Amino acid sequence: MKSAIRNPQSAISSLPIGIFDSGVGGLTVYRALHERLPNEHFVYLGDTARVPYGTKSLATVERYAVENSRFLEAHGIKLLVVACNTASALALPAIRKALSVEVIGVIEPGARAAVEESNGEKVGVIATEATVQSRAYSRAIARIDAAVEVIERACPMFVPLAEEGWADTEVARTVAAQYLADLRNIRLGALVLGCTHYPILRDVISEVIGESVQLIDSGAATARAVESVLEKNGLACVTQEVARERKLCDDLDHFYVTDAAERFAGVAERFLGSVPSVLEAVEVWGHDELRTH
Amino acid sequence: MKSAIRNPQSAISSLPIGIFDSGVGGLTVYRALHERLPNEHFVYLGDTARVPYGTKSLATVERYAVENSRFLEAHGIKLLVVACNTASALALPAIRKALSVEVIGVIEPGARAAVEESNGEKVGVIATEATVQSRAYSRAIARIDAAVEVIERACPMFVPLAEEGWADTEVARTVAAQYLADLRNIRLGALVLGCTHYPILRDVISEVIGESVQLIDSGAATARAVESVLEKNGLACVTQEVARERKLCDDLDHFYVTDAAERFAGVAERFLGSVPSVLEAVEVWGHDELRTH
Repeated sequence: MKSAIRNPQSAISSLPIGIFDSGVGGLTVYRALHERLPNEHFVYLGDTARVPYGTKSLATVERYAVENSRFLEAHGIKLLVVACNTASALALPAIRKALSVEVIGVIEPGARAAVEESNGEKVGVIATEATVQSRAYSRAIARIDAAVEVIERACPMFVPLAEEGWADTEVARTVAAQYLADLRNIRLGALVLGCTHYPILRDVISEVIGESVQLIDSGAATARAVESVLEKNGLACVTQEVARERKLCDDLDHFYVTDAAERFAGVAERFLGSVPSVLEAVEVWGHDELRTH
Repeated sequence: MKSAIRNPQSAISSLPIGIFDSGVGGLTVYRALHERLPNEHFVYLGDTARVPYGTKSLATVERYAVENSRFLEAHGIKLLVVACNTASALALPAIRKALSVEVIGVIEPGARAAVEESNGEKVGVIATEATVQSRAYSRAIARIDAAVEVIERACPMFVPLAEEGWADTEVARTVAAQYLADLRNIRLGALVLGCTHYPILRDVISEVIGESVQLIDSGAATARAVESVLEKNGLACVTQEVARERKLCDDLDHFYVTDAAERFAGVAERFLGSVPSVLEAVEVWGHDELRTH
């Protein structure tokens, strides 16, 4: 089932772009892709049965990531975006080995944007425990410009804060002040929001770290990378069939979750201002076969 | 593999008590059992690969809980304690159907203690989203005394706060004040700490809700229930072999996790002041077979 074209009339370029995330956070990447690529349509998988990934081990994150990726490839996609920073940091080699379509993670585009925006100053990275431990952003930035100094910091409470809808509260400001205390004393050129949930807290992070520090949203950077890969490989959707008047979460975009679809819809509404029209619970685990409810 | 006695010389009463939790929170229940039952030894399973359960659906929590319970029964236990409030609230019937040993959850003992301590006043329950939605505490309390009024409130940020080691911080006080705002205006006789992590935040919860409200730790209540079941069924360990000078986490108690043993050890040290001597990562999923690394 490698990049199966479900409708023989369609060219590969009219297939959707696959996006997976550990849960609901990847919707910020979906939004960035949707804005940048209005001709494209998307199939999103949130692994809500096993979220979060950020506190889990390399072996476990790899296993979950490969299962999710195989599910999306079997669905028929032309390209896979790994929206989850933790999965991008830990599991890209395993995913690429398992799939035949092109795979784009969020780390490399985020690192590139950080180097560009930092003007030679130091770069800060805030992310989950697993992403920080992997030092994936530090290594990606070193490959682009070895002279850039990188400081990474785990901010585990930011995810529950965003999911609770507490982005604009005193609690969020106190938590951000605590996590960013060290980084505030360093002259940073840019700060990478290295977890898909963190753009939800952008205002409070900016307030605490100072407005002079460029905040890098890996989602937006990834959307630019995807655009470039689609063009280079002749995979961009050229028919006007899809473009029309595309709204977020309309029925051209399909959303799958591995658990608790209702809760996902609620958080989606908070993150995007709209609820997916097509939302289905599926099982992605098992050995090689795929089972849907 | 029903209650297999691994050493034919041992009686069933010398088998360990099994405890499972979605992760590290159940260590507060382990501590309460260890204190109350110094003759007993324990085998603990933390499902750290799939934690947390509190935001997941009934079907998913049931599946995870049954897999964990089967793993422990195959290990050879005389009784199973479901330390996780969410699993106790949602999955006890499924677990009892799957196992032949006696199964004790934390809801029923916690509900009984709350009714006893509330002196006819209202009872508050704070717990995960899934536990609150299940209304398991309300139903258990109604079965004991239908006249007791119960108010339940979900406090999802309490788990990450406890795991972050932020129990005694301004952030914890602000979060608690936010969650408990309504409950403070109600005359409560008792407040059930309906999630295994919450006893870690006991001081700040008591400070916010007022010292006149009795805080009910389901772990301590469950330890009393386990003691009574062991005595009634002649299952209490009577040999002095085990008693000795028992320290928390010594080598008589075995700990298993489904992922990230190192992180578990770190949080265990924060929760118990000691690190498990015997700690192993295992796989509990799959169809019927058990696979260990």
